[in-house]
Amino acid sequence: MNYEERLTSIYKNYLSHLNQKNTPQSDSEGYVLRYEHPILTADHIPPHWVYDLNKERNPYLAKRLGVNAVFNAGALYLNEKVHLVLRMEGYDRKSFFAIAESQTGIDGFELWPTPIAIPQHENEDVNVYDMRLTQHEDGYIYGLFCTERKDPNAKDGDESSAVAACGIVRTTDIKNWDRLPDLITYSGQQRNVVLHPEFIDGKYGLYTRPQDGFIDTGKGGGIGFGLTESMEQPEVKTETIVDPKKYHTINEVKNGQGPAPIKTPKGWLHLAHGVRNTAAGLRYTLYMFMTALEEPDRVIAKPSGHFMAPQGIERVGDVSNVLFTNGWIKREDDTVLIYYASSDTRMHVASSTIDQLVDYCLNTPEDPLKSHLCVAQRTEMIQQNQEAHLAIMEELNAALAQN
Amino acid sequence: MNYEERLTSIYKNYLSHLNQKNTPQSDSEGYVLRYEHPILTADHIPPHWVYDLNKERNPYLAKRLGVNAVFNAGALYLNEKVHLVLRMEGYDRKSFFAIAESQTGIDGFELWPTPIAIPQHENEDVNVYDMRLTQHEDGYIYGLFCTERKDPNAKDGDESSAVAACGIVRTTDIKNWDRLPDLITYSGQQRNVVLHPEFIDGKYGLYTRPQDGFIDTGKGGGIGFGLTESMEQPEVKTETIVDPKKYHTINEVKNGQGPAPIKTPKGWLHLAHGVRNTAAGLRYTLYMFMTALEEPDRVIAKPSGHFMAPQGIERVGDVSNVLFTNGWIKREDDTVLIYYASSDTRMHVASSTIDQLVDYCLNTPEDPLKSHLCVAQRTEMIQQNQEAHLAIMEELNAALAQN
Repeated sequence: MNYEERLTSIYKNYLSHLNQKNTPQSDSEGYVLRYEHPILTADHIPPHWVYDLNKERNPYLAKRLGVNAVFNAGALYLNEKVHLVLRMEGYDRKSFFAIAESQTGIDGFELWPTPIAIPQHENEDVNVYDMRLTQHEDGYIYGLFCTERKDPNAKDGDESSAVAACGIVRTTDIKNWDRLPDLITYSGQQRNVVLHPEFIDGKYGLYTRPQDGFIDTGKGGGIGFGLTESMEQPEVKTETIVDPKKYHTINEVKNGQGPAPIKTPKGWLHLAHGVRNTAAGLRYTLYMFMTALEEPDRVIAKPSGHFMAPQGIERVGDVSNVLFTNGWIKREDDTVLIYYASSDTRMHVASSTIDQLVDYCLNTPEDPLKSHLCVAQRTEMIQQNQEAHLAIMEELNAALAQN
Repeated sequence: MNYEERLTSIYKNYLSHLNQKNTPQSDSEGYVLRYEHPILTADHIPPHWVYDLNKERNPYLAKRLGVNAVFNAGALYLNEKVHLVLRMEGYDRKSFFAIAESQTGIDGFELWPTPIAIPQHENEDVNVYDMRLTQHEDGYIYGLFCTERKDPNAKDGDESSAVAACGIVRTTDIKNWDRLPDLITYSGQQRNVVLHPEFIDGKYGLYTRPQDGFIDTGKGGGIGFGLTESMEQPEVKTETIVDPKKYHTINEVKNGQGPAPIKTPKGWLHLAHGVRNTAAGLRYTLYMFMTALEEPDRVIAKPSGHFMAPQGIERVGDVSNVLFTNGWIKREDDTVLIYYASSDTRMHVASSTIDQLVDYCLNTPEDPLKSHLCVAQRTEMIQQNQEAHLAIMEELNAALAQN
């Protein structure tokens, strides 16, 4: 293929991904409905973000700045469109943010012209990722993200140790971003920090994830919560644990708040990730809980187990066996669109409704934490089901026999 | 199926793999072109290497000595054929070497009659793997490989700790192999040692990978380089670091030289592997750099990020998320065939040319090492591309509208 043929072929591939319509999968959960195709992948990135399109400078039409993954997007419903603040990862392993918008929220996501240039402090970010967007009642839109820098105390020759902290930007139009100081806490490193959308006694509420080290969460026990007087000098002096890590559950090793919670008449809906260890590395699944309307840090319902776990192609990617979410939006009709990433590689969408999610949280049994109690729980349900089960089996077998 | 039917079916499967033609995938990188099918897998091994074909001794036609993986091959262009020195892994987890040859270099690889019997020292090898072949200007072909033996200082009950060193064999015909003494260095264990093809001030140059421990590379900082007076008493007294490990890059945790470098008028082309950690274990990608013609240990160009990363089926195998290479060859027409393995399971081939690889190395931007600098780099390219991007989009959208 010559230069022009390659150019056409590359753009045709891009357009075929851009124009791909999405359709729901068949629903087996009853509380969440996945869509067939990923909504954003490396193939959805416009070629001029990746190739130098100048034929003299780039006669082989080679990628100059490849992108291998599009994942972990914050979400915002603004001006009747869904906006995602994507995490993109270049071939150089540095993550950065870019905005994509869509009318439907399930397909047709188009990137804004250029990536977001995050203003820098004197202590520059080395890597930034996983922005949570909160439309706060103070009138601003906040973006809280993880910023990583090399561990100044790393041992000689250790090029992996990093320090993770919560970086904060603020905007009214998601075009002009002001950088605020990084969050100060006293519980070690921070990731997965999320701003609660309403004031609490005139203060800002932050979901945190205190941790001892960069990858280990250590003894800091789960999703935390704390208050700061201001976002311009953000400081959380004490954190309490909202949802602790727990032995032999899906969040035994660590967990973290997903996007900002959604308010319902019955309480705040929370979506989070839980992590356990396996012989093949960590496994990340999504789970839910609800907190009290007036006390968003007090859990009032927690269904057992995962809400969503990796399935099919979701299982495999740059970092396999991971589902992660930091974005969802509620539409005017109470539809909820959940934006989740699989295996640090691609973005997906799933849909539900406020009623379904509240039902899920309030009516899924709690985790009884021991196998024999789980057996009792299930056996009770099986026995209650017996009559309905036999009736439908009889009906369907009769229909089969007639054919 | 009876014995004869099974025998026929097993051989038909083997022949279908042996005779499979390979075709290039559609190229999106512009500097490397993958081929559709793996070139060698466990299915390509002749059945008589695996089954006892005596019906009386083996009435069930059972595998007696299974092989689960064919990977990490050294490569040599000799007598107008591509020869690969494969790493095979038996079901017993021991690796060994076997030679396969092909006229095209992209398909039709056939094994030589029996595996290579590596001559032994008094201190026998327990495992051997990852041979790098170098046709040296001294007239010999050298094979440098990793030899592992149990750590004599392992704690009681520890059956995993090993010591890795560089074993060396020499040949002129790749049929008769002489064993030379193992390489002596003073920087800890050694893996990924590769012989430079030319003399340097009358000495032999070795790319090394000094490391403190068996799996950790510790503070030993990257791909090293050192000289030895002779290959018959190989000893490198001092190693300098050619390409160090670096925070938040694709070779943050460790890296290693791939095959011996290829000489071009503009410098030596190097192919290497870089390793970072993830929640799902280590991730191995391939990257490139160039060194000066007269100083093969001085880097003159290093493109940012990975050259190739696991894709599709390559992502999954006995050890997932790994691309590794220790073989490539240059043909007379300056085509370069890159032999790489995926996930410690199977061998693939990709092609490029000297011109493309030199262009890739000299014109891919360097890694600016911080997210905001990467954004600036990409934004500049996007803006330069704007006109060309709009032109092709307009053309393709007009064509779409017509249909």
